[in-house]
Amino acid sequence: MNTYAKVRAPATIANFGPGFDVFGIALEEPYDIVEMELTDGPSTVDSVPYPLPTSVTKNVASYAALALLGRAGRGDLSFKMTVTKGVRPASGMGSSGASCVGGALAAAALAGITSDADIVWAAAQGEGLATGNPHPDNVAPSYHGGFVAVRSLEPYAALHIMPEDLRVVAVLPDIRVSTKEARAILPATVPMADAVANVANASFVIHALMTGAYRELGTALEDRLSIPYRKALVTGYDDARAAALDAGALAFSLGGSGPTVFAIVEDNGPAVADAISGAFAGHGIGSTAYCTKIGRGAEVLALE
Amino acid sequence: MNTYAKVRAPATIANFGPGFDVFGIALEEPYDIVEMELTDGPSTVDSVPYPLPTSVTKNVASYAALALLGRAGRGDLSFKMTVTKGVRPASGMGSSGASCVGGALAAAALAGITSDADIVWAAAQGEGLATGNPHPDNVAPSYHGGFVAVRSLEPYAALHIMPEDLRVVAVLPDIRVSTKEARAILPATVPMADAVANVANASFVIHALMTGAYRELGTALEDRLSIPYRKALVTGYDDARAAALDAGALAFSLGGSGPTVFAIVEDNGPAVADAISGAFAGHGIGSTAYCTKIGRGAEVLALE
Repeated sequence: MNTYAKVRAPATIANFGPGFDVFGIALEEPYDIVEMELTDGPSTVDSVPYPLPTSVTKNVASYAALALLGRAGRGDLSFKMTVTKGVRPASGMGSSGASCVGGALAAAALAGITSDADIVWAAAQGEGLATGNPHPDNVAPSYHGGFVAVRSLEPYAALHIMPEDLRVVAVLPDIRVSTKEARAILPATVPMADAVANVANASFVIHALMTGAYRELGTALEDRLSIPYRKALVTGYDDARAAALDAGALAFSLGGSGPTVFAIVEDNGPAVADAISGAFAGHGIGSTAYCTKIGRGAEVLALE
Repeated sequence: MNTYAKVRAPATIANFGPGFDVFGIALEEPYDIVEMELTDGPSTVDSVPYPLPTSVTKNVASYAALALLGRAGRGDLSFKMTVTKGVRPASGMGSSGASCVGGALAAAALAGITSDADIVWAAAQGEGLATGNPHPDNVAPSYHGGFVAVRSLEPYAALHIMPEDLRVVAVLPDIRVSTKEARAILPATVPMADAVANVANASFVIHALMTGAYRELGTALEDRLSIPYRKALVTGYDDARAAALDAGALAFSLGGSGPTVFAIVEDNGPAVADAISGAFAGHGIGSTAYCTKIGRGAEVLALE
């Protein structure tokens, strides 16, 4: 039996416009690295460079691993886990989701578990620990790569599209938004017209991604279910959006529950990134920009 | 200048599961035939075999023609219009939509108007006369054929998919449902979870239609925005649904605002049709079944 696994799990952008709680995409970067070594002693977990919980039942990566091992009847396994965070926590780029997928996939590799449904389910349990809601819209794309739409976690029903060379600018402003707060700000009911608009927009997004006609994303990436409420938590959102579109972005939206914003671009990524960062700077807010593209899913880098 | 046009415009199924007010498909049959002849006298309209308004400003087919001619600056033209209804009014199979498209396309042919956006807009004005709401989810598929998702009427934004050989059983029970009543029964706001579910289902429908994997339609054709409210107007709906699925239908839903129900089938159309009709018969309700498939859009049959 192998005793060491090293896994890479990418950042993601959940919601992806009109797909609140349904759509997500994997990014080429940043990503988390999770290392897991089977041991005899009590299980441990450590995270660098961000200080995250060191209790295995409170850290999302180890929690996901434990959930998977428990479901597979391998709760007897003890491990030492190290999470190297490339994705900043509370960024809206699926930081906890990447760690959850890393933990679950590392455990899967060591325990010989191959069921996508089980791995995604376990990773979603980690998300539940982080946010109070085991939503799969970050973990599914981090696991599968590309674009994913999740209809149901149990039974697991997800569709995958790999939109080749979809270029994405993600800009992370120096603002803290907690996922719990971003969820609490949402209404329990929404106008029927907004639901209808999102169904239409989501349909156009699927079509554009499947045909590669990314220019059609345009206004189809607009959302009326979550962003109108959540953007209040991201100072400068409207200015960043206007600046991105002025700089030639094809589309613009909020990443996950924020504060990350993202734009779909052609070959003008750096200019769009500068425009967005400039808009935040106008509000006295620093930011980090990633000119990246849609990426592949989580992978086992080493298994020994 | 041509003085006579004969147009065929097919029945449609609007909403098509989770796409309330957005999705629609054209059926191969039934269809309406609209004949339009330019005359010198005052404009007239007549419909057979159903008694429909004979005032050109109250009949939807002539109203759509007038709307198009007015928009194109050809309000000077007078005509004699005859509508041969193949689609029963108030059926939930886009009866008014077929007549509207027939009227608009006949006028377009005679006046040399070729803009899809203008023709669909004019046809939607006829729908507005019929229902109080110029919704395009019947007229757009009747005009274009295949599957259509409409995001916006002005500016016109619609996507088209032609799902080859998508087989449809449509069953029209002997129940009257007025489109106005079916709209009035809908709530102004809906639970967020229902909106999210419809976005997910609609995404799966687009994917299934684009890939031809019609078995994936299955539960993705479920709707939580309109059918839970509207099915109360269609006695026997739940029994018909159960009977269709028991008989091997891939999916089942309400057509438009009802009372038509429809199923997606493989080569078991007649058995599914019998099962649905049997379920309605169990409630003492007669019905008419069509074993048909997705069809092409409206066309000009003669222009002289």
